[in-house]
Amino acid sequence: MPRGYVRDLRVRWALEEAGLPYRVESVPFRDRRPEHFAHQPFGQVPWLTDGDISIFESGAILLHLGELSSKLMPAEPHGRSAVKEWLFAALASVEAASQPWSFFEFSGETEKTPMRMFFDSFLEARLKHMDTVMTGREWLAGSFSVADIMKADVLRLVDRFNGLADYAACRAYVSRSTSRPAFIKAHADQMAHFAAAD
Amino acid sequence: MPRGYVRDLRVRWALEEAGLPYRVESVPFRDRRPEHFAHQPFGQVPWLTDGDISIFESGAILLHLGELSSKLMPAEPHGRSAVKEWLFAALASVEAASQPWSFFEFSGETEKTPMRMFFDSFLEARLKHMDTVMTGREWLAGSFSVADIMKADVLRLVDRFNGLADYAACRAYVSRSTSRPAFIKAHADQMAHFAAAD
Repeated sequence: MPRGYVRDLRVRWALEEAGLPYRVESVPFRDRRPEHFAHQPFGQVPWLTDGDISIFESGAILLHLGELSSKLMPAEPHGRSAVKEWLFAALASVEAASQPWSFFEFSGETEKTPMRMFFDSFLEARLKHMDTVMTGREWLAGSFSVADIMKADVLRLVDRFNGLADYAACRAYVSRSTSRPAFIKAHADQMAHFAAAD
Repeated sequence: MPRGYVRDLRVRWALEEAGLPYRVESVPFRDRRPEHFAHQPFGQVPWLTDGDISIFESGAILLHLGELSSKLMPAEPHGRSAVKEWLFAALASVEAASQPWSFFEFSGETEKTPMRMFFDSFLEARLKHMDTVMTGREWLAGSFSVADIMKADVLRLVDRFNGLADYAACRAYVSRSTSRPAFIKAHADQMAHFAAAD
């Protein structure tokens, strides 16, 4: 995953939006220890510790943070429900299609095999519906929420490979999301973190 | 998606486990109406209506049902947190890898292109870790929960294409999950639903 797109960015972004205090720690990747797998069973990052609770999966972490701050999830039941469904949809309906597509893009393989065309159209179908959803809508669930952090971060990687060319509402949504001060700080912090590790 | 694997099964299964009353309704697929997209913006199934709330995404529906029944999610904070992270992990860490793999399997294309091998190893890495997690563990979060419904349903489709041959703990977990009376009833109901529509 290229720098600036590692998933701890989603967590940093949410923490910055909410103004919650936090500390970032690094773990070695090459020699992952049993403690790493105890926190993250797939040996990945990020995970969050909050008191005596340790949570992995960016979706679960965003949901946890949403429950801590009204800046990340509204108190009203319909709004909360909308945030949760869009949080899942960002992963299971959009990233499920954009991730395999991005693997093809990342591989540099350009041949349009039947499977490649299948994955292209799988993503296109999802983006077409997302563009309809975002047309005339500023944020997914009324006000800005963790659902937007997830969805905008998923679409941002599609945009990086120019996959949003035909989807103006999605493009504008990514641009609106990534111009928020909390995103800009989170992104700069992740880049600085990598630079310091070089 | 073959009969017996449509995602409303996850919802039926949870409702059966909890003993909550429910009613199943059908919608036409070929001529999907604006009301369908109003409930499910990607034009898919299932969605759930509960009072004046309408929820799409099987993950969000399972989370909603988990909050309604202690048979689907424990009351204790650590257990609840574990259920939520595994619910997300089933989708974003396991199904994200198993779904593209199953598309290849389903296509009948057997050529081992570099991309095919990439997707095979992407799934294998996730299954290897899942097998470690399930070794000596009956359910994901202490007692049976919506996380197991999601995870077992995801692994069940891998098993259908014989993808769990090297993962005995995952295979046993699928078998343990699908021998529960609530699964058996939900599965039979989905099959009967299709048979009635023929």
